Amino acid sequence: MTTKKQNTSSFISPPLGAGEVHSPSGAGGLSGRHFISVKDVRNINALVAKALAYKQNPLKDKSLGTNRRIGLLFLNPSLRTRLSTQVAAQNLGMEAIVFNIDKEGWALEFEEGAIMSGTTVEHVKDAAPILGNYFDILCIRTFPQLKNRDDDYSETVIKQFIRYADVPIISLETATLHPLQSLTDVITIREHLLGFPLRAGSKPKIALTWAPHVKPLPQCVANSFAEWINAWGEAEFVITHPEGYELAEQFTKGAAITNNQDEALKDADFVYVKNWSTYNDYGKIYCNDPYWMLTKDKLNLTNNAKVMHCLPVRRNVELSDEILDSENSLVTKQAANRVWAAQAVIAELLPRP
Amino acid sequence: MTTKKQNTSSFISPPLGAGEVHSPSGAGGLSGRHFISVKDVRNINALVAKALAYKQNPLKDKSLGTNRRIGLLFLNPSLRTRLSTQVAAQNLGMEAIVFNIDKEGWALEFEEGAIMSGTTVEHVKDAAPILGNYFDILCIRTFPQLKNRDDDYSETVIKQFIRYADVPIISLETATLHPLQSLTDVITIREHLLGFPLRAGSKPKIALTWAPHVKPLPQCVANSFAEWINAWGEAEFVITHPEGYELAEQFTKGAAITNNQDEALKDADFVYVKNWSTYNDYGKIYCNDPYWMLTKDKLNLTNNAKVMHCLPVRRNVELSDEILDSENSLVTKQAANRVWAAQAVIAELLPRP
Amino acid sequence: MTTKKQNTSSFISPPLGAGEVHSPSGAGGLSGRHFISVKDVRNINALVAKALAYKQNPLKDKSLGTNRRIGLLFLNPSLRTRLSTQVAAQNLGMEAIVFNIDKEGWALEFEEGAIMSGTTVEHVKDAAPILGNYFDILCIRTFPQLKNRDDDYSETVIKQFIRYADVPIISLETATLHPLQSLTDVITIREHLLGFPLRAGSKPKIALTWAPHVKPLPQCVANSFAEWINAWGEAEFVITHPEGYELAEQFTKGAAITNNQDEALKDADFVYVKNWSTYNDYGKIYCNDPYWMLTKDKLNLTNNAKVMHCLPVRRNVELSDEILDSENSLVTKQAANRVWAAQAVIAELLPRP
Repeated sequence: MTTKKQNTSSFISPPLGAGEVHSPSGAGGLSGRHFISVKDVRNINALVAKALAYKQNPLKDKSLGTNRRIGLLFLNPSLRTRLSTQVAAQNLGMEAIVFNIDKEGWALEFEEGAIMSGTTVEHVKDAAPILGNYFDILCIRTFPQLKNRDDDYSETVIKQFIRYADVPIISLETATLHPLQSLTDVITIREHLLGFPLRAGSKPKIALTWAPHVKPLPQCVANSFAEWINAWGEAEFVITHPEGYELAEQFTKGAAITNNQDEALKDADFVYVKNWSTYNDYGKIYCNDPYWMLTKDKLNLTNNAKVMHCLPVRRNVELSDEILDSENSLVTKQAANRVWAAQAVIAELLPRP
Repeated sequence: MTTKKQNTSSFISPPLGAGEVHSPSGAGGLSGRHFISVKDVRNINALVAKALAYKQNPLKDKSLGTNRRIGLLFLNPSLRTRLSTQVAAQNLGMEAIVFNIDKEGWALEFEEGAIMSGTTVEHVKDAAPILGNYFDILCIRTFPQLKNRDDDYSETVIKQFIRYADVPIISLETATLHPLQSLTDVITIREHLLGFPLRAGSKPKIALTWAPHVKPLPQCVANSFAEWINAWGEAEFVITHPEGYELAEQFTKGAAITNNQDEALKDADFVYVKNWSTYNDYGKIYCNDPYWMLTKDKLNLTNNAKVMHCLPVRRNVELSDEILDSENSLVTKQAANRVWAAQAVIAELLPRP
Repeated sequence: MTTKKQNTSSFISPPLGAGEVHSPSGAGGLSGRHFISVKDVRNINALVAKALAYKQNPLKDKSLGTNRRIGLLFLNPSLRTRLSTQVAAQNLGMEAIVFNIDKEGWALEFEEGAIMSGTTVEHVKDAAPILGNYFDILCIRTFPQLKNRDDDYSETVIKQFIRYADVPIISLETATLHPLQSLTDVITIREHLLGFPLRAGSKPKIALTWAPHVKPLPQCVANSFAEWINAWGEAEFVITHPEGYELAEQFTKGAAITNNQDEALKDADFVYVKNWSTYNDYGKIYCNDPYWMLTKDKLNLTNNAKVMHCLPVRRNVELSDEILDSENSLVTKQAANRVWAAQAVIAELLPRP
């Protein structure tokens, strides 16, 4: 049995169902102490299997978190992420405390050596160790500013918490990634692959398609989905977007990329719809052509694909009502699976007695 | 024994104390799956008796809610309603999660078919099913806009949650009604009827009187109180207000209505004080004559009446200090009873194992 | 054994470790029903010992708070105070409910006899009794306005809650005092005195030094620290600040006071750094000379002193990075001790069965 120290990032996916679940031994899929990106995962399928086992029996590890405390820190608003993580923690018997730093606290400083004579009230160097002291696990949500790409892509906020808090850190979405969402997405895809009519002998085809929106959004969900599907390696994966919306290669490498949406959608088994702003000329809206909205007509190009979206979704802007309200939509099941993704990750990171 | 399916809305009140309490069988007073108005109540006295039994022994059903989760969603601020419902849920051993959508989340869209290119971020069709998935019971508070009567009185928000969440919904006050408050009011009245000096052979006289205020308020507390007292049927009930403040007939039918406050107060055993804005010419303040404030002088017209108010109360605008600080005031006892009202309703709606 | 009724405020400090801990009998250090200032403490060392016992074994009284409920009311933002109190309550098995009145509720009125036709929505006379009804213990944070000294120093807010809530009240910082912080400070000092190189036969020297800041802050942390160290009586205590920053004598009496920072720091074993605005000409910033910032050079004047601050700290304005990041800094340990201070106080005030 692979021990926790071993960090090979091999991503060799076992056949479906073969991913051994080692709950609560901590050997169920994570390789590191934190959960920030797919790089913290040793075995995606094992982690997925662990999550699906919780879905079957949510309270099977109810005593695992007894007298353990999880802190959920929000620098930005959240609905599903916050609630699903709270529910997951409760399922594990943990005490969860939510803290909206932006609203209930004050502005944090992240710059080393800053002379704090401005608007920031407390340095992360002082806040993080305390939070690490009060909690056994710390979860953090922080959005990008979409102003300076280097600032956002350096992921200063979560890295500073990792550096100074001295407890396991779980990302509840950061400037560039949203790993609990992506784990959920893989869980949802795997779940639906059972009994799903694939072309014989083939891998499922997954298309990630850009969609219009009314304001500039982060790239994190798209980055993260690309990173996870690539790392998972059990699908034919294509990304499609208008010219100028290229994502960072560090996350997309391995995927086919095309500006031809029809081509990407053709025969797809899963279509993941998401808007993002430009990465190269950072944080802009270029083309916002409604042509890119996913409609029933476009879905006809696919293999009667299941349609996914992380929510919240702008109806009739990103995706039409007719799709969201149809049998093809997985969005509700996907959001419901957020609980099991969070529960699997928390269970993995819980300090052992 | 009447089964849960039977929805006769008979409101036949048994003699005080005879209302059989069927905790935790679910047959203790509710007729439906939700708690939105008095129409969801099969037997008001049974529900009142159930609440008073919890008041005697708050923790008697501590294990009833084990591993059950209740979500409290606020689209508007709350003090008593939020805290009393949290306390009630804890008394039943449930895990309660509060979520201030307006502050911690984002604006919801309620219009069918909306092209969401404006300020609303998520459609209730997408949010509600997830919330229903995360929670066993969902509680919702939503205020009216007081701009368009048809919009407010259609109760779109709570109806959409009922339609899409697929779990029991409890109103924590909606555009037109506040049923947990009204249940509390009936509980408080019944409680005080024991040993209360009524005129021989008569029903207690309850007067609902309009009071001045500094801003336009919803009609919901008044609507709801009228609806419940009428349905309860165990009182002589009169509503008094200045001309122009007529409430919707659907809620007041059965009550005497007069613009003569003195006449309404005469010999009253209970006086319920509340401001509301106009219903016909919707959401306005017409007369705001301080003459309508309840004072000690006016109380002399009554049968040494107990004075009720749902709180928060504008002291010396709606009600004088001398009354609120006197033995006649029930407002604190009333607010304390909010816990038992919420506890009885939650216990009724808890899914049975 | 001293009973709870006895309120001698003798502050006779027993030798370290001799303070008998009477958990959970309620005789462990408090003399009154509330925790608002050092005057509520019968025996500081006993209370400190109780807190340190919780630090050794956080869950030793896990059943003490079963089915007890603590309400945390915030009229102002908080990080450490809120989280440490929640953690402390959970360690005692209590249900803690946080309520940010300023954000989730509405403005309270505190003036007796007010005609409430303005912006305040509810009088404390109506809100407090209800909160006292819902909770077994009520904790309140309220900042000063720094506009009118008499208003702030009358401590109307907390006094009104004490008057009307009828349950034990714990201050989470008020206009003039911050007793949980000060208890934490004494705990931290005592903890470090063990094995600390004092000059033979002498008491430790503690210097409280004013520091620059960018905006006018309350005097409460400084007032409270002075009051506690004076009451404790086991240190040589000096306060230093620029001319014009004199604190209220009611809190400082017994301490040496000097405008010469170097003299105050000389041979100090502990340096407590804190900004405050002027008390006499109330709420102003006079001198804001960066010379008063504590630096490594200044620390060389001390007996290799431990440096304390209540946090949040403005780095390189109040204290330099080189000190905060050095072995001399106790700020993280201090903040961690907040949990044990809160836990000891809550345990003392819990109603006995």
